[in-house]
Formats: sequence, structure tokens, C-alpha cells
Amino acid sequence: MSSKIYELLSIGNALVDILSYESEDNVASLAKIGIEKGNMTLIGPDEATTVLRQTGQSTMISGGSAANTLSTFMSFGGSGAFIGKVSDDRLGDVFRHDLKAQGVMYTTSSAPMSAQTGRSHVMITSDGERTMATQLGANEHFAPEDIDEALVAASKTIFLEGYLFDSPSAKEAFMTAAQMAQTHDTKVALTLSSVSCVNAHRDDFVKLTKSHVDILFGNEKELKALTMKDDFNEAVEAAKTLCDTLVVTRGSKGALIVQEGVHTDIIAAKVEKIEDTTGAGDSFAGGVLFGFAKGFSALESGRLGAEAAAAAATISHIGARSVNRDFSKLVP
Amino acid sequence: MSSKIYELLSIGNALVDILSYESEDNVASLAKIGIEKGNMTLIGPDEATTVLRQTGQSTMISGGSAANTLSTFMSFGGSGAFIGKVSDDRLGDVFRHDLKAQGVMYTTSSAPMSAQTGRSHVMITSDGERTMATQLGANEHFAPEDIDEALVAASKTIFLEGYLFDSPSAKEAFMTAAQMAQTHDTKVALTLSSVSCVNAHRDDFVKLTKSHVDILFGNEKELKALTMKDDFNEAVEAAKTLCDTLVVTRGSKGALIVQEGVHTDIIAAKVEKIEDTTGAGDSFAGGVLFGFAKGFSALESGRLGAEAAAAAATISHIGARSVNRDFSKLVP
Repeated sequence: MSSKIYELLSIGNALVDILSYESEDNVASLAKIGIEKGNMTLIGPDEATTVLRQTGQSTMISGGSAANTLSTFMSFGGSGAFIGKVSDDRLGDVFRHDLKAQGVMYTTSSAPMSAQTGRSHVMITSDGERTMATQLGANEHFAPEDIDEALVAASKTIFLEGYLFDSPSAKEAFMTAAQMAQTHDTKVALTLSSVSCVNAHRDDFVKLTKSHVDILFGNEKELKALTMKDDFNEAVEAAKTLCDTLVVTRGSKGALIVQEGVHTDIIAAKVEKIEDTTGAGDSFAGGVLFGFAKGFSALESGRLGAEAAAAAATISHIGARSVNRDFSKLVP
Repeated sequence: MSSKIYELLSIGNALVDILSYESEDNVASLAKIGIEKGNMTLIGPDEATTVLRQTGQSTMISGGSAANTLSTFMSFGGSGAFIGKVSDDRLGDVFRHDLKAQGVMYTTSSAPMSAQTGRSHVMITSDGERTMATQLGANEHFAPEDIDEALVAASKTIFLEGYLFDSPSAKEAFMTAAQMAQTHDTKVALTLSSVSCVNAHRDDFVKLTKSHVDILFGNEKELKALTMKDDFNEAVEAAKTLCDTLVVTRGSKGALIVQEGVHTDIIAAKVEKIEDTTGAGDSFAGGVLFGFAKGFSALESGRLGAEAAAAAATISHIGARSVNRDFSKLVP
């Protein structure tokens, strides 16, 4: 067995998030181009133009579900690596920089310059919900040859995001990674990512989970979609037969971890005011994976996840400009 | 006389700020590549690589001094336009989008794709000071033909940033705009931008201010550098002979507005904890210019500036990831 250098290798879309606060009406009006509140929708250049025209002032920050989870994992003091595709443009520079600034090993080659680094418009409404419109860009060039077998072998656990199923070549890369993990005694963790992702690829998700996944992450809705059960308890019973460890986030109800049949309830950490749930689920997974990496109990690991999720939900997204601030009330 | 459609036309560098929190030591270590704490330093690709290697996780937001001032002006309910140069890349998209989201008229053509949109690394230390390293990029293609004479004619006031003097063709564009303004009965406001900028171009600044500038903005240090006087009062006496209106920011001491010889002291608005002075001076100018545009008194205009500066100094720069947050204390 090869020696393990990294506790976690995240594999996922490399995206820069463009965050803005939007009214309910504005988000609702984007239904005409297929964007649904609370979901992640893939968009092309035409839709991107519409989104840019209709959204307010923005703040940008490196994102991507698996990369966010890894970022939280690193914040706890873990050791990690990332595989994902950017372009050699300004946003790609910054994405690489942000991972390296946390000590992440990240060496995936860049996509050709004709492809720009992927971006995700994250529209935040006053209820703290996020509606995402993602232009994959460079990520569409992500392919099996990007999976570095030595890196998979050197990692204790790989973490895969379901969103990769959205691009055919990325899906292939995903399957390659899962197979390599099995060869090298590397654990596989998977997050279901979104209900639409699960609905589009249910059979593949079930097959993959049964054959390769050790730790499955998802929220209640995603779990119900995967198992096609309307009742939460029935969905849990069905899902727990698919893998060793099941981690289900339940919003304000906290989370449930099922490890080899043992159920552990995790209470949500207190949040004074939820400003934005962007990344809360990703952060939760990062805390839990850190706990698992250190051999902590399900309860201890879940608590780390809950604290990280609460921190992610309360921080605000504002920059040098007063985003969405109305100064007109100051006028005498 | 042509009719005036815009209250303010800002002309300046089009930049996206990349903000990160840095330790004093880390910022000090960048002295080896000529970066000085509290100043703005221009950097090339080699220095940019060093800065990217040494700085922490970042948040990005549209910036640029004159553009920030205009953004504040728009937040008060003003009408405005912008002239400045981006490239047709992702950051350029976002820069255009952010101005348009505030209702700004912005139609300057893009630089060739070989030039990337300009970026400014803004390193924030715990004392709230900002140290900037700027790669001009697309802004180096900014030239006199980008100054739309009809737009200058349609504006009541143009606001120019001294930073434009850093690129020869942009400096020419700057002078073209100032001359057009005189032809079309458009007022000219100028901000001195930085001590190094003033030191490098003192004679040109003095000549320009005497001949074309109606409203001059600067902080104490910049004013002393311009007039080569060590004493603040002497510097004010010397500077007020150069233009109708002089606006000097004085940090916690507030600001001074001298209008046709009449001195008005502006008290700084209360700030509980200064998190970052990025953009505070730009915001101050935006508030003051809005007051002037509406015909308010120097005191009223100054107060709007002070409120805007305080708001800019207290907002925080944090995104979906926990920038610079240390979760290790949560580990049991």
C-alpha cells in the first residue's frame, strides 16, 4: 500500500462565485431563462448576458462545492489537494492563488485560453437562500487524463461533487477517480450536490454509491430524490444500505450521521441571523470530513461541521463598494 | 451651451480589487519588490507572481478610485457616466456589469484581448491601512480617442483621478478631457490620488490645477507634497490659490473644505471599529460631489462625504469562504 500524504483530495468544478443581493421579484423574473430559485442552473453565454444585465453589484470569491469543502477542511488544519480545471486568465490566477494560500496542493493543467475560467452567479435573497447560475467554461475541458493517479494514491480520502456529472468528460474523470481510489485503498466521499443533479443521474449515482462510495453527503431533498422516497426516515433506511457512512443535512433541524447502522443526531449551531446559506452545506462537509480524518466520533465530527456551517451562514459579502446600500436616506 | 444629462462623469483606471487580510510582517516583506505599506505601487507580471505567492485568501470587487467615487455618487441617487478601459475577459465583464447595475452610462471600447483587465491587490493590515499593488493591464491602452467629447459636453462635472498620470497615453487622455471640459462649460474635479503620484508629476499637477481644475481633492500628505509645504495651514494657503474649491481629508480629524476662500471644517462621522480604509477617501469624494451637484452648502456636502467614508470604513470584506478565519480553535 502506498503511503498517504494528503488527508483529503477534493475533485470538483473550479468556479469563481459572483455574489449579489437580489430581490425575490428579480430572481423570479429569471424563470424565463430557466433559472429556478434555490437551485443551481447551468447557463450558456446568452443566459449569462441576461443574468449580468439583471443582477446588482457583485463581490467575487473563489468557489466550487468541493473546493469550498476543502477550504473549510484546511481552515481546521487539515492537509489537502485539489483537482479541477481553470483557464490561465485573471480569475484562474485568483482561484489557484486562493487554494495555494491555504496550503492546498493544486497542479491540474489549465484549459486552453479560448475557454474562460468558470463562474457561478450566486443570487442571495433576503431569506438567505441562494439561487445559482453557473457557466462551466474551462471546467468543460476537465477529463480523465486530469486525474493524477499518484495524487489519488497519496490521499486518505477523495471527495467528489455530484455536479461533475453535468459535463460528460468530467463525469468520466469522476468515474476514473473513483476506480483509482479503490485500487489504492483510498476512501471515497461523494456529495449529491443538487436535486436536479440527482434526478438527471439517479441510476448512476445509486450504482456508484453501492460500488465505490464510503461516505455519502446530501440534504433531505437530495436523499429523497436519490431513494425516491417521500418520507425522510424511509429515505434514510434506503440510503444507508448503499454505503458505510451517510451524512444528511437538515437545515435548522441540524444533521443526521448514520455510521454502520448507528444513528447520531447533530444539533445545528446557533446562528443569530442567517445572512446567506452559500457554502453552508459545503462547510458542513468540510468540518465532518476533518473530524473523520482525525478519527473523531460521529458526534464530534458532526459538531465541527455544524460550527463551520454556522460560520459560513453568518458572514457577509460586502466589499470596498457599498453593495446594495442605499445612501439616499442620508440626503438632507 | 449644450444640455447637461449627467451630473458626474468619472474618468479613471478600470480595476478589479483583490482584497486580502495580511500581517504587518508579510506586507513588510514585500518591500523587496518595491511595495511600500500604505501606498499604491505599480507592478508588472513578475511582481504580480510574487504578490500572488505571498498573499492570503481573497475577495474580489470592482474598484478603481474614480469608479469608486462614482459608485458612491450613484448610491446617493446621482446620475453618472464613466470612461475607462477594461478587456473583454471575465473581470472586464464584471467591472462593466457592476457600473451598469448602478445605472452608470459606460461605453468605452475594450482593450485588445492580449491585455487583461487591470487588477489591484489590496492588502489590509490590522490597523485598517491598505497597501496596494496594481497591474494596470488593459488601462495601458487607455488613450485620448477614448474620451467621448459628447459625453464630456453632456456632463456637469468631470472627475479625474491623478493615477491616470501613471500611463503616458492615459495622461494624454486626461489632458484631452480637461481641455474638452473647458470648451463645454463642464466643471473639472481632480483627486491627487497618492503622494508618489504627486511627487512624480508635481509641475504638471500644479499647472493643470491652475488652468483647468475647479475642485481639488486630496489628503493632508498629498496636499503637502503638491505645495511642498511641511505645515498643513501653509499647504492649504498655497493650494487654495490654485482653484475655486479645495477639499482635504484629514483621517480621524475629518476634513476641510475651502470654497472661494471660506473655510469649513467637517467632523469625521463616528466609526466603531475601522476595519479597512479601502475606498474611504473615494467614498468621501463621492458624497461631497453629490452635495455639490445638488447645490448643497460646503457643510452639508462635507457631511454626506463623511457619512459615506464611515460606511466604507466599517463594512467587511468576507465571502462564502471564511477568509483568514482560523477554525483550529474549534477542534476538541
